[in-house]
Amino acid sequence: MHSIRNTRLLDVLNDKGVDRTPIWIMRQAGRYLPEYMATRKKAGDFMTLASTPELACEVTLQPIRRFTLDAAILFSDILTVPDAMGLGLYFEAGEGPRFKSPVRTPEDIKNLGKPDPETELRYVMDAVRLIRRELNESVPLIGFAGSPWTVATYMVEGGGSKDYPHIKRLMYGDEGALHRLLLKITETTIDYLRAQVDAGAQSLMVFDTWGGILTPRAYHAFSLHYMQRIVDALKKSHATTPITLFTKNGGMWLPDIARTGCDAVGVDWTIDLRDARALTRDNVALQGNLDPGVLYGSKSKIREEVQRVLESYGEGERHIFNLGHGIHQHIDPENVEFMIETVHELSPAFHRK
Amino acid sequence: MHSIRNTRLLDVLNDKGVDRTPIWIMRQAGRYLPEYMATRKKAGDFMTLASTPELACEVTLQPIRRFTLDAAILFSDILTVPDAMGLGLYFEAGEGPRFKSPVRTPEDIKNLGKPDPETELRYVMDAVRLIRRELNESVPLIGFAGSPWTVATYMVEGGGSKDYPHIKRLMYGDEGALHRLLLKITETTIDYLRAQVDAGAQSLMVFDTWGGILTPRAYHAFSLHYMQRIVDALKKSHATTPITLFTKNGGMWLPDIARTGCDAVGVDWTIDLRDARALTRDNVALQGNLDPGVLYGSKSKIREEVQRVLESYGEGERHIFNLGHGIHQHIDPENVEFMIETVHELSPAFHRK
Repeated sequence: MHSIRNTRLLDVLNDKGVDRTPIWIMRQAGRYLPEYMATRKKAGDFMTLASTPELACEVTLQPIRRFTLDAAILFSDILTVPDAMGLGLYFEAGEGPRFKSPVRTPEDIKNLGKPDPETELRYVMDAVRLIRRELNESVPLIGFAGSPWTVATYMVEGGGSKDYPHIKRLMYGDEGALHRLLLKITETTIDYLRAQVDAGAQSLMVFDTWGGILTPRAYHAFSLHYMQRIVDALKKSHATTPITLFTKNGGMWLPDIARTGCDAVGVDWTIDLRDARALTRDNVALQGNLDPGVLYGSKSKIREEVQRVLESYGEGERHIFNLGHGIHQHIDPENVEFMIETVHELSPAFHRK
Repeated sequence: MHSIRNTRLLDVLNDKGVDRTPIWIMRQAGRYLPEYMATRKKAGDFMTLASTPELACEVTLQPIRRFTLDAAILFSDILTVPDAMGLGLYFEAGEGPRFKSPVRTPEDIKNLGKPDPETELRYVMDAVRLIRRELNESVPLIGFAGSPWTVATYMVEGGGSKDYPHIKRLMYGDEGALHRLLLKITETTIDYLRAQVDAGAQSLMVFDTWGGILTPRAYHAFSLHYMQRIVDALKKSHATTPITLFTKNGGMWLPDIARTGCDAVGVDWTIDLRDARALTRDNVALQGNLDPGVLYGSKSKIREEVQRVLESYGEGERHIFNLGHGIHQHIDPENVEFMIETVHELSPAFHRK
């Protein structure tokens, strides 16, 4: 079915047996790699790096060249979508992402653009095509987008936040306007993810970084509901492309996430995989969940914690090893390599093959 | 037993019936009140405000004068403890708390002071005595401290953080050193809380703001274990003073927190009180859990959400109404008053008296 050589990730997503647990790393193309820092320096700034297909391709491939990973993930940012909707994304040194025109009023929401992925976001699709060509069927390529709730949070706050005053004001002050915003983002995100698959992405992931700041009721209404729409739409048009949903701090909602019809659920490190597996009853694959902080530790500590994650999942064919969130900037790449090799060494014992 | 006039909070903590659900608000003495801003301006900076008993007393009483609340909480900061241990706390404009000498090495940990609460932290005890006198037995006074894990996080990071690289490096790199640090903080915190009770605090709360960034195993070893020591020590010396433990993002660990022997558990808004109550089997009082963001909403939305919290707890005598975390800076005090009055109006239906 796949001409690809390393099918471990897709096999786990499709519930087929594997010889060992596949592994990739959230933010694997990133600032902890000296070669990434060199390319970024050449690009000048983050947006140039993300929007130049040759450079995005180069940094996507860097961790694949350096480590024995089972998947590549497109180098991009969840905020390319609101940028294309007209908000004017920029990055302030040391401040993280900012928008020139944050969304605050019903009028702002009405005026949002509905970008065509092959026009306003063509640089992403060109990057996907180029990466697939360069990967040359070695490992699968993961495409991604932010969850509508998470993207809306950035759009309304105008950047990162501590208390999320603006989006909470909208949520408790004008629920209807928030739903209209979420619907627009959802429609754009569906088009965007479909275009990524058409361009060559072989698996998809939706990052819900801020779903965990909601009440259970609000999480269902404002975050999960729109991820459900994405899953439904993609399953209709691209039934064979697996989708992974990941809500950070969403441990208590894993059963509901698993019921969306997604193929895998990302799990952060605040819940044991044993419990996550019981909550999702083996109906989905689980991706995670080593604390990224473990990579600051000694090799023997890394080995101990990798073993603990593998044991917590236990025997079974539906585990994708990953960190519980993105890798930190100041991690030594040698420790990353050691973690990956340790997963290769220790995980076969948990598989039947 | 108490000469105090409004015993609702203490009655709920002691499992006696009440006529309506008591309410107080985390960070009720704070920047959303214009009278607080005026006193703070007079003080010049936060540390002067917190360390001058007359000013700390004044801001503690401000919300009691303005609203019909069932408890006062000492105006102070969880970082007065590490300040007294020698770290040199200061506040940078717009940047939050900082330490002149963060703790990084085993040597730093060895050199930490063991402050005497009635000497280095005498200003806190003087504030407690003054507040009790000024409250004149109207409502009880809550004293507090940070959890050892949370205080250690600030001490090692040197301030607030996003990824907590330094404390994670210590945790996975030199576990023994971290335990020595936590033990020192725990011993000082026990002395500090005992002194607060001796000075007049009638209830105690331990704020574990950062326990939720840990794996379940690390939470038990590095956060809950030391809160357990605090509960054990206080129950030995001051058995009749109730203790509330609050781990933000600790929804999944509520059963374990409740088993420490504490009298109440704080609950943030990411879990329904119905579930929190089932998890803790009515063995403790529950404090919470309105999303602070609700206070940005209209009066009808505030009423709807207050009713939802009361219904979620249901009938019973062991609920203390509060927000799920501290009140935000830009909330209109009129909305706070409306929330409080709504709790007074709607909560009697949930009580037998």
